[in-house]
Amino acid sequence: MLINCAVYEDGRKITEIPKEEIHLHLGRPGRFVWVALRDPEPPEIEEMRVQFGLHELAVEDATHGNQRPKMEEYGDSIFAVMHTVELDGEELIVGEIDVFVGQDYVLSIRNRTKQGFATVRGRCEREPKLLQEGPGYVLYALMDTVVDRYFPVIDHLEEDLEKIEERIFQGEPARRNVEDLYALKRKLMVLRHAVAPLHETAGKLYGGRVPELVAGTQEYFRDIYDHLFRINQSIDSLRDMLTTAISVNLSLITVHESETMKRLASYAALVAVPTMIAGIYGMNFEFMPELRFRYGYPVTLTVMALADFYLLYRFKKAGWI
Amino acid sequence: MLINCAVYEDGRKITEIPKEEIHLHLGRPGRFVWVALRDPEPPEIEEMRVQFGLHELAVEDATHGNQRPKMEEYGDSIFAVMHTVELDGEELIVGEIDVFVGQDYVLSIRNRTKQGFATVRGRCEREPKLLQEGPGYVLYALMDTVVDRYFPVIDHLEEDLEKIEERIFQGEPARRNVEDLYALKRKLMVLRHAVAPLHETAGKLYGGRVPELVAGTQEYFRDIYDHLFRINQSIDSLRDMLTTAISVNLSLITVHESETMKRLASYAALVAVPTMIAGIYGMNFEFMPELRFRYGYPVTLTVMALADFYLLYRFKKAGWI
Amino acid sequence: MLINCAVYEDGRKITEIPKEEIHLHLGRPGRFVWVALRDPEPPEIEEMRVQFGLHELAVEDATHGNQRPKMEEYGDSIFAVMHTVELDGEELIVGEIDVFVGQDYVLSIRNRTKQGFATVRGRCEREPKLLQEGPGYVLYALMDTVVDRYFPVIDHLEEDLEKIEERIFQGEPARRNVEDLYALKRKLMVLRHAVAPLHETAGKLYGGRVPELVAGTQEYFRDIYDHLFRINQSIDSLRDMLTTAISVNLSLITVHESETMKRLASYAALVAVPTMIAGIYGMNFEFMPELRFRYGYPVTLTVMALADFYLLYRFKKAGWI
Amino acid sequence: MLINCAVYEDGRKITEIPKEEIHLHLGRPGRFVWVALRDPEPPEIEEMRVQFGLHELAVEDATHGNQRPKMEEYGDSIFAVMHTVELDGEELIVGEIDVFVGQDYVLSIRNRTKQGFATVRGRCEREPKLLQEGPGYVLYALMDTVVDRYFPVIDHLEEDLEKIEERIFQGEPARRNVEDLYALKRKLMVLRHAVAPLHETAGKLYGGRVPELVAGTQEYFRDIYDHLFRINQSIDSLRDMLTTAISVNLSLITVHESETMKRLASYAALVAVPTMIAGIYGMNFEFMPELRFRYGYPVTLTVMALADFYLLYRFKKAGWI
Amino acid sequence: MLINCAVYEDGRKITEIPKEEIHLHLGRPGRFVWVALRDPEPPEIEEMRVQFGLHELAVEDATHGNQRPKMEEYGDSIFAVMHTVELDGEELIVGEIDVFVGQDYVLSIRNRTKQGFATVRGRCEREPKLLQEGPGYVLYALMDTVVDRYFPVIDHLEEDLEKIEERIFQGEPARRNVEDLYALKRKLMVLRHAVAPLHETAGKLYGGRVPELVAGTQEYFRDIYDHLFRINQSIDSLRDMLTTAISVNLSLITVHESETMKRLASYAALVAVPTMIAGIYGMNFEFMPELRFRYGYPVTLTVMALADFYLLYRFKKAGWI
Repeated sequence: MLINCAVYEDGRKITEIPKEEIHLHLGRPGRFVWVALRDPEPPEIEEMRVQFGLHELAVEDATHGNQRPKMEEYGDSIFAVMHTVELDGEELIVGEIDVFVGQDYVLSIRNRTKQGFATVRGRCEREPKLLQEGPGYVLYALMDTVVDRYFPVIDHLEEDLEKIEERIFQGEPARRNVEDLYALKRKLMVLRHAVAPLHETAGKLYGGRVPELVAGTQEYFRDIYDHLFRINQSIDSLRDMLTTAISVNLSLITVHESETMKRLASYAALVAVPTMIAGIYGMNFEFMPELRFRYGYPVTLTVMALADFYLLYRFKKAGWI
Repeated sequence: MLINCAVYEDGRKITEIPKEEIHLHLGRPGRFVWVALRDPEPPEIEEMRVQFGLHELAVEDATHGNQRPKMEEYGDSIFAVMHTVELDGEELIVGEIDVFVGQDYVLSIRNRTKQGFATVRGRCEREPKLLQEGPGYVLYALMDTVVDRYFPVIDHLEEDLEKIEERIFQGEPARRNVEDLYALKRKLMVLRHAVAPLHETAGKLYGGRVPELVAGTQEYFRDIYDHLFRINQSIDSLRDMLTTAISVNLSLITVHESETMKRLASYAALVAVPTMIAGIYGMNFEFMPELRFRYGYPVTLTVMALADFYLLYRFKKAGWI
Repeated sequence: MLINCAVYEDGRKITEIPKEEIHLHLGRPGRFVWVALRDPEPPEIEEMRVQFGLHELAVEDATHGNQRPKMEEYGDSIFAVMHTVELDGEELIVGEIDVFVGQDYVLSIRNRTKQGFATVRGRCEREPKLLQEGPGYVLYALMDTVVDRYFPVIDHLEEDLEKIEERIFQGEPARRNVEDLYALKRKLMVLRHAVAPLHETAGKLYGGRVPELVAGTQEYFRDIYDHLFRINQSIDSLRDMLTTAISVNLSLITVHESETMKRLASYAALVAVPTMIAGIYGMNFEFMPELRFRYGYPVTLTVMALADFYLLYRFKKAGWI
Repeated sequence: MLINCAVYEDGRKITEIPKEEIHLHLGRPGRFVWVALRDPEPPEIEEMRVQFGLHELAVEDATHGNQRPKMEEYGDSIFAVMHTVELDGEELIVGEIDVFVGQDYVLSIRNRTKQGFATVRGRCEREPKLLQEGPGYVLYALMDTVVDRYFPVIDHLEEDLEKIEERIFQGEPARRNVEDLYALKRKLMVLRHAVAPLHETAGKLYGGRVPELVAGTQEYFRDIYDHLFRINQSIDSLRDMLTTAISVNLSLITVHESETMKRLASYAALVAVPTMIAGIYGMNFEFMPELRFRYGYPVTLTVMALADFYLLYRFKKAGWI
Repeated sequence: MLINCAVYEDGRKITEIPKEEIHLHLGRPGRFVWVALRDPEPPEIEEMRVQFGLHELAVEDATHGNQRPKMEEYGDSIFAVMHTVELDGEELIVGEIDVFVGQDYVLSIRNRTKQGFATVRGRCEREPKLLQEGPGYVLYALMDTVVDRYFPVIDHLEEDLEKIEERIFQGEPARRNVEDLYALKRKLMVLRHAVAPLHETAGKLYGGRVPELVAGTQEYFRDIYDHLFRINQSIDSLRDMLTTAISVNLSLITVHESETMKRLASYAALVAVPTMIAGIYGMNFEFMPELRFRYGYPVTLTVMALADFYLLYRFKKAGWI
């Protein structure tokens, strides 16, 4: 679905055009066309391929989707794939943004994303001075937005871990903790699959040799690189803490098991000792003087109770109950 | 066994030839011979060595099989080894494709594979423009097909893991889960042995210095490289999740053990308390007034039952039963 | 909040100036302005941007804070971000120092730190010969101070680990040990996030190509690099020992569980055996000669006691009690 | 002990000579002397040092043995150390081959190896064309043989693992499995210490800059490199599987423990329930009508039996017994 | 404390001098001064700084001690820090050797080491030919000695592990094994902190660009590098085996727990079954024919005994007792 198709000159939007007229605006210095598609059908992409003269392999990738985040140069144009990661309740949704960038055009295609990129266009149009840098700056703005949207996700995962930690140390149901730790690990892997290759990619857009299209905006890409570095580091820490949390949780389960065993054994003792005493006075010897005492029975009951109180006291003191 | 032996010129098949005539078609610009063998005997390979003038070490490797995936240059010819991985029910079968590529020939040898590569030939012949690139493009087409066939395998392994995860969290038989996790790990290692070296190899076929034979098809090999990167990443994730799954499973086994212990202890208490009470009224004291009460017995039975109901209520509330 | 604003020439402070006059002192060889801010509001930073002509992206980073430790060159000026880590009781507090360094100025901004950097200024002023090196030396002095303040933190964490180890091996409450090990891991990650990127950064300030501003003080930065290397190594060791401590702790918990089980079983036996004997003499057979013996009862009690003493002796010997 | 000392010219053995005459045959183009020693005494090595003018440090290494596998260039001669790994029943025996190679000599010294290298000499002499390459080819042939002998060892270790896996999953004695896994790990480390440095070494003998002595046989060394790569990969997989096997084994031990606990508890219940019932009818109430029933006793026994049958049925169904 | 101060020329000691005269012997080709200090006070180091003109930062490092092993070039002089590791009973003691090397001097300072380096001086003086290489050779000799003294330490740790392994597999007290494994890990980390950075350092002293001072003795430093490589490899193996040993130990503890549980359950059964039988004959039914049988009692006792013998037989057979 076509969302937008506009012509920019010297950093300002000059007009919106129907997509059939795109080729009329190409090849003019200082002018570029910016087209945005959303979940397009193959024919729509094919149309763009013809208008912009895109490379077949790149078009194939964009049509099939499911590429890993990457940036490829075809001659002096760039084809970039980024993954968006969005929160949907407790689930993570992975979408894909494919961006084709040339001297005189930007074509962005978003697939399976909830949030759009209208804000990016707005932001670019508010800063004509930067937009003068041309399509390379648009690529930066799109990438920056994708990366900025990772931050709430990583925050969410960190909060998740904190909640689980709290439950672990408060001794709440171990089974649920284990399940949640595993689910968190899964989400972390999803995020990592989006971030790690993009980080690697961003590293190619500043310093050393960079594609000509982004030469003037290197410092901006370094900024993105730094953000991705920070996200990556957070992911690594989360993974590390998670592994530790799983083994710590196992330790606490075992501790808990051990404590339960002691408590159970204590209660068992409270029953077993009176049973033994009762057993003794249940013996049928003819000559058992206690049996004839007037107060033998109440005394015995008292002895049982005292024995239990004593045990109870000892168990409490040892922290078993 | 010879499967096919044909001559191509300017991207089109011109004729099928008997293998004895191969040398007649070599050394003519724009023309190349494409031979396919299947599980060949050593003499068949020897014959090819003579016809194409293959390097001895490469031939030795192809004859003995069991090489790791690799790509070697001998002068201006290429010798490539790839592993196929096919699903056979729950088992993985590893086959081997050896490809010799020169300026004017492609020789592919497949060993122990179920699926053939006739589709590759068909695909190439339908795209004469690309086939004009010569033997390098055939190498790409073969490699692409081998790599494409890894995807269903990795999908299968991912589904395997999901099934096991489900069973783990539904508390199904722990023993089987452990066995299945181990078996999955084994399969993963098999796939990884095929993919990892091929990935490394593909990285040498684009960018930087590449063998002349594939110089015109670099962008295609970069595409393969990307696919292998994605597969590799999936394998790494699977390994990571698997390790986590094993330790999570151990945690759940321990949790389960702990829960079972509590349930058992609860039932034991339900038996032990009446036994203790019965023991008390089994004592032989002469003066035990309750024993003479008309309703002593039913009252005692009631007390026993009430004690058990109370315990049952407590255990239920504590989630032990 | 402005802390200090002074002009230096040839390594000596010549005067304190109001911040509005900063630009009057720039651009004079041998002279530089050193400004220190603390938890500044955005307008204060903006003012500095104007006075010194700082790069927008760097200013944005300093305004938002929360950057990873890094060093960036903008033309021939440097923007450095460092994290301070301070102990507050048992907690670690992470602050941030942003330093802008140019040919004729140093601007340091500290956020969320308890300790100030007045000592750095004092130290620099006491060594005019070194301060003659200019702003690069001030950057070194700040960095050196930040790094020196990591040492007490790492010492504190090492002591923490030692205390936990002691408790682990003395068999003190396992639950608390587990919690403390986890908390220590958390702190270690915090410290590592501050140290690791700074270490990487410091490596760029000596040997090979270094920014011109620090060219004359390379050997000093190598010294910082070495300190960070040592801290990093200590962090790695701590992580390694911690992982080992967690698994060792789990082993000891299991050992303890096993020992407890033996002790409980021993006590159970001491109760069960007399109960069995009592049961036997509680049988109602008509012909049980022992029941009629004058001393049957005391003898039986003695047998019970002897059996228990024997068991007690055996259990003690086996180390179960 | 001197095993062999022969002169070769143009790829053919021309004569065997006493070791005192070695120097007479040196320095003649196309001719080289090949000497083989076995577990030599220091004086024998010293003699060789004098004859061939070997470097002191290399000789010292060869005399003391116990070097890590390596390859060192001394001027235009090469000193190579390789470790042999041989199976002796269930044990691995590590031997050492030191090879000195110069323009006109090869000196090989084997220490603590069972198998000799006579076959290498035979193989070389059967291929005069290759032997014409000179001492570099002999180095290849020795190295190839050492490497080929790793394969049966790695196969043996893989079989070992498979046997242990089988026992683990068939539930055979856990203790023995643990011991065998540990022993396998030990052996793996031994093999790895021989292979890993040799792999690294072989990588220096092809591609890029290589010592002149082996320049003509690079493709052969690449072949060795590939073999070592494959062995290394197998070792890594084995290590990985072993670690997994150990944790899987622990999981199964815990599962087994849990199952045993259930079985024990089941049997305990079968005893406890009749005991409780018996306890009830052992009470001494005067008014317990059942006690007077003619068939009270058999009915009670029947009830006990039925209760046990019911429990047995439930336990069987739950898979506890 | 000054240990020694001597002048060497052309590889031979010519005289011992008081430290005040050092500067008189500097700057003469072929001559150098070799000074050794032990646990010096700051003034002593300061005195050396003046005599030799040492770099301030290096002197500061030497004065404060506690540096990581490293090698730094200051102009054409070298400052090297090495750690000694000595066995003191079961403890490891870490000392430090700081070496300043220039064209015409060697200053070695040892701190907190038990063993001295007089043997190094002796060895150097016995090999005047090598000592002619000058201060670089002295540095080698010192380093070689430090490294050689690591070997007995690593041997000691390997023996430690073997002893623990033996105890683990013989089922000796698990608690002590755990403690010893942890202690071994600690020692390993200590040794690693000394070895790893020195290894890295030694790698800079041969091949590629090396400081001029050691240019003539590169092959000797390569030898040291190899030794450190071997030690490093041993440390890595030990770490790996240790981790395996800890998890294997945990497995065996769990196995042991499981075995103990079975044994306990067996004994419990031996008591529970007679108790149940006794309970049955303790019931008060009026019509229990067995109670009236003349031999009811002995028969019942016999039945109890037989039941126990049968159980005992079964348990023995199952290996539970």
